[in-house]
Amino acid sequence: MLSKSRISLLQSLQQKKFRKQHGVFLVEGYKSVIEFVNSAYQIEAIYYSPASGSKLSKLLHNKNTAEVSLTILEKISSLKTAPDVVAVVKIPDWDNLKPVSLKNKFSLALDGVQDPGNMGTIIRTADWYGIQDIICSEDTVDVYNPKVVQATMGSLSRINLRYTDLASVLTDAQMPVYGALLNGENIYSTTFASEGLVVMGNEGNGLRPEITRLVTEAITIPRVGEAESLNVAIATAIFCSEISRNKLAGNK
Amino acid sequence: MLSKSRISLLQSLQQKKFRKQHGVFLVEGYKSVIEFVNSAYQIEAIYYSPASGSKLSKLLHNKNTAEVSLTILEKISSLKTAPDVVAVVKIPDWDNLKPVSLKNKFSLALDGVQDPGNMGTIIRTADWYGIQDIICSEDTVDVYNPKVVQATMGSLSRINLRYTDLASVLTDAQMPVYGALLNGENIYSTTFASEGLVVMGNEGNGLRPEITRLVTEAITIPRVGEAESLNVAIATAIFCSEISRNKLAGNK
Repeated sequence: MLSKSRISLLQSLQQKKFRKQHGVFLVEGYKSVIEFVNSAYQIEAIYYSPASGSKLSKLLHNKNTAEVSLTILEKISSLKTAPDVVAVVKIPDWDNLKPVSLKNKFSLALDGVQDPGNMGTIIRTADWYGIQDIICSEDTVDVYNPKVVQATMGSLSRINLRYTDLASVLTDAQMPVYGALLNGENIYSTTFASEGLVVMGNEGNGLRPEITRLVTEAITIPRVGEAESLNVAIATAIFCSEISRNKLAGNK
Repeated sequence: MLSKSRISLLQSLQQKKFRKQHGVFLVEGYKSVIEFVNSAYQIEAIYYSPASGSKLSKLLHNKNTAEVSLTILEKISSLKTAPDVVAVVKIPDWDNLKPVSLKNKFSLALDGVQDPGNMGTIIRTADWYGIQDIICSEDTVDVYNPKVVQATMGSLSRINLRYTDLASVLTDAQMPVYGALLNGENIYSTTFASEGLVVMGNEGNGLRPEITRLVTEAITIPRVGEAESLNVAIATAIFCSEISRNKLAGNK
């Protein structure tokens, strides 16, 4: 059994303020929980439904697991249908972790992406394409938001993240900074360097002027039809795809 | 002023059953409304807030407009923040419209896509890449769902749609049917034909076996990293991007 106060703490994790205060976030659902258990993230506790006990035998070796009723899972879950397992996972202290080098690879830089679904999809897509690092401006949506965690489908467990002053990172990067801009080079005829940063902007406003100024390679995804713009997760995916294609072509 | 019964009819349009019964759906927000006004869709009515009257002068020539209070807009809107204008738009009778030919172009075929956000993003992406036709299996999410309409950002007004027996369409197509499958040809070394259908499957289950059997060109988006799969809207976008790239390269 979980105490009332513990339940209300877990419920409060749907809000960023309380995630920050308690230093933990929720991961919901069997597949995602397994991915976090097998990652560098620290698991504080795992709660599972009576029905899922046998399926979770692997997890049960962990000291901090407890069987709870489905009613309790429903209370603490952010999902419409309660998952059969949730994990309480520690938010890494990215600021004090040794920053990963961005050399010799491509990383994403996000300038104020706001929609949790977009953010989650960007993380999942980055993970598919082998991009390991995402640098976020301070006002980018919190990746430990339950909707983001859900949309990453476990990929969040494998990506290095940093919330920071994006302009400083871009200024100090000493590598190409690719940005999706109007009137840039056609992405389909661009030869990407062997390392770089891809900067993507906010859903409504795109890149801030101070970030746009730091873009060294303005790139355009050519429009054939009529839509005014592409969704930011889609545009990010097309950059990841083209970079991947370039690399595969280069290795031939 | 709108009558109580009119307001409750408009509210009911958030459910597919009532959209079908009344033959109309809601388009919310200035930009999307303008796109529908300028499209082949028939507008039944437009309701706008007192504050937006001047901005809407172009629309005011239309006979069926009415100024309503913000409270009423809040009541009929599906959005958290009520838009300053909503349009009631007639659902086209696609079944009795002359079906568009799929010859000499690429079209999308969706086999049970369920998430409204994904569906909307697919429509918006198709519109960006100049794809005009989307054929949906009967169990694909309704495109007139308010969340889909919202996510298309107006692109819904320009795309031809058909809900039908997808297997029959693919059987009769007499053109390549490209499907995202494991162990297919690498998409980055695929030369696409000059016409074809791209079939994308359900979020959880992918393509149904009976649809998979009708795929003539199995294509794989190569994975570099660790994510188990790509989001369906992302995978669709990468197909659209590669087809577009192929065409641009062919035209050189």
